[in-house]
Amino acid sequence: MSRTTIGVIGGGQLARMMYEPAIKLGIGLRLLAEGPDVGAAQIFKDVMVGDYTDEATVKSFASNCQIITFDHEHVPTWILRGLVAEGKLVRPGPDALQHAQDKLLMRRRLTTSLDAPAPKWQACADAAELRAFGAEIGFPIIAKASRGGYDGHGVWKLDGPADTGIPFEQALTESAGEKVEIIGEEFVDFARELSVIVVRSPSGQAVVYPVSETIQRNGVCRETITPAPGLSDEQAAGITRLGLDIADELQITGVLAVELMQRTDGSVVVNELALRPHNTGHWTIDGAHTSQFENHLRAVLDLPLGDPRARDPWCVMVNILGGSNQDLPSELLHCFARDPKLRVELYGKDVRPGRKVGHVNCYGDDLAEVRARAEHAARYLGGEIREG
Amino acid sequence: MSRTTIGVIGGGQLARMMYEPAIKLGIGLRLLAEGPDVGAAQIFKDVMVGDYTDEATVKSFASNCQIITFDHEHVPTWILRGLVAEGKLVRPGPDALQHAQDKLLMRRRLTTSLDAPAPKWQACADAAELRAFGAEIGFPIIAKASRGGYDGHGVWKLDGPADTGIPFEQALTESAGEKVEIIGEEFVDFARELSVIVVRSPSGQAVVYPVSETIQRNGVCRETITPAPGLSDEQAAGITRLGLDIADELQITGVLAVELMQRTDGSVVVNELALRPHNTGHWTIDGAHTSQFENHLRAVLDLPLGDPRARDPWCVMVNILGGSNQDLPSELLHCFARDPKLRVELYGKDVRPGRKVGHVNCYGDDLAEVRARAEHAARYLGGEIREG
Repeated sequence: MSRTTIGVIGGGQLARMMYEPAIKLGIGLRLLAEGPDVGAAQIFKDVMVGDYTDEATVKSFASNCQIITFDHEHVPTWILRGLVAEGKLVRPGPDALQHAQDKLLMRRRLTTSLDAPAPKWQACADAAELRAFGAEIGFPIIAKASRGGYDGHGVWKLDGPADTGIPFEQALTESAGEKVEIIGEEFVDFARELSVIVVRSPSGQAVVYPVSETIQRNGVCRETITPAPGLSDEQAAGITRLGLDIADELQITGVLAVELMQRTDGSVVVNELALRPHNTGHWTIDGAHTSQFENHLRAVLDLPLGDPRARDPWCVMVNILGGSNQDLPSELLHCFARDPKLRVELYGKDVRPGRKVGHVNCYGDDLAEVRARAEHAARYLGGEIREG
Repeated sequence: MSRTTIGVIGGGQLARMMYEPAIKLGIGLRLLAEGPDVGAAQIFKDVMVGDYTDEATVKSFASNCQIITFDHEHVPTWILRGLVAEGKLVRPGPDALQHAQDKLLMRRRLTTSLDAPAPKWQACADAAELRAFGAEIGFPIIAKASRGGYDGHGVWKLDGPADTGIPFEQALTESAGEKVEIIGEEFVDFARELSVIVVRSPSGQAVVYPVSETIQRNGVCRETITPAPGLSDEQAAGITRLGLDIADELQITGVLAVELMQRTDGSVVVNELALRPHNTGHWTIDGAHTSQFENHLRAVLDLPLGDPRARDPWCVMVNILGGSNQDLPSELLHCFARDPKLRVELYGKDVRPGRKVGHVNCYGDDLAEVRARAEHAARYLGGEIREG
């Protein structure tokens, strides 16, 4: 049977979860992993271990693949441009990908081309400019490193002018050969955070999943509720339109996650973009007709995309965060005995405090019951509670 | 993370489909494959290639596994007894497994211990006994080889005494060192065939999936409809009870599939047993809260079993049978464009005429529509039709 081989760069849980629909659809996946024991490397058949910031390594890896896609956005753009110049299909491509790598570029593009809703923002070359920006729009403000941030790292809240030294000391470093800049942003005292997952294929087809409410703790995604409770049809349609517009403007292939902040008046602003399957889309594995991972692969292959709609009125995903429990599989006994409909995905990672080591999904008709089931299971598996 | 390694003997699509829930639950699976290119060997990380009828090979394979389970029932019982004697967990165990290997043993056990409904049957030592059996109950009769039959092989319909030479010539051979006998059975002019899937754990918990109607063509399963249309609650409860009783009587671990024939008066008789995930349970991958493959692994690990109920009113599975189309993945374009809710699983097998090379699942509220979608997709992927 002739097969296209897709090379996946990055061996984390996103690559791992891509392997399941790849098995189903008979798609050959090859992995470039950071080490032999990372989550995806444990289960992929075809693994190369190497450094994704090294051009020769990436080129060698890509030489046996027809298409390249990603577990993360950290491959240097210049290396990807070299692959494209050689005729390799890189999906999403570097022109799109850089908007997830560089938050300043993202802000500029979305503001200039789409007038997409955003907090007030300004590129700040030094502490004085950040201070002046704060004085102009009023403190507190947010300062962000343009590159390299994740899960709350590289983001600071500044209550007044005296704080402005902090991000410059910590953040103005070089990141994979590219300069990190500082963005000053209005502090949005949001009512809640939302996320919308779009999948787009090279031929231009796109699907949008129902909008999720996302609940963070210490800057890390803890939980998603889908659909976002209380969102009006009009608000949901506006967010869906925004997601489609961004995917089209950036000519994205595969998954685009748009993280949003919703103000108390119901309006939203774009917070971050991710151009890969996203934590806020893990509910789709058990909750939607087609998962974000299958649709990502279908997009990468330019196959028609699957139905993104939810199968049940509510689906709640809760991340399992590393805690005192080092042996997750052994804790499944309690959780499965308690809840026969519980859906669990473990990532094969060593447990470290606060690290995302898995997630659970629950779905059903009653949101309160669905949330309670999912939260109990995730907290139990993470070692936060020890009674039933 | 500490992990139990389950060794799976046999590299076909059933092993392949076990790998998906194993990834989810962080379960280590190791494969003993017939060759390096069989369906499961293409995607398993940890593969040993070897002959499952060779004791040294099986022992060597098992030495690195805590538990052994199966893709098929063809490992010689005496080899498995040797593993058990050495303290290895073999699930299902040889005492149970032999009832799927030996149809005569199965008939004897189910009749003696459970008085389970069966066609009239008799062990026949030679052609004269088969002829006498036919004369007693009336021709036509069915003659079956006690061992080695599958997908219609090893089963013959005999219209009269003159036919009785056929099965004895073809079937009375040695099969993996064990004698093949002939069973004479009443020809059941059934209205339809049914199947019930039970999963049982070593601690005795069992779950039963809704009863399916199964549609065969040329002795090969072509389609399942779940739940079986028109089955009364009483009939469904009786079949469920029968499945549970057989699983308990044989002390099965993992999946038990009971294939049944239903007469026009609604009564059923047991046709065959399988002690592994079964083709008639493939609908559970997309149609039930927990798939037969995940529940098989959970049973093998003695973890609590997941909810076997259907998520939608109807689910139809249709096998993709090999035909003129050699390149299944390339045909996904049409099917996915036509039906965004279509679920496809390809087995990575070389296409040969009539061979099961994949299946599709469709689910929904309207049986006629669901069947039409599933049948179109499977026939298209198999190369039987070429217009939309």
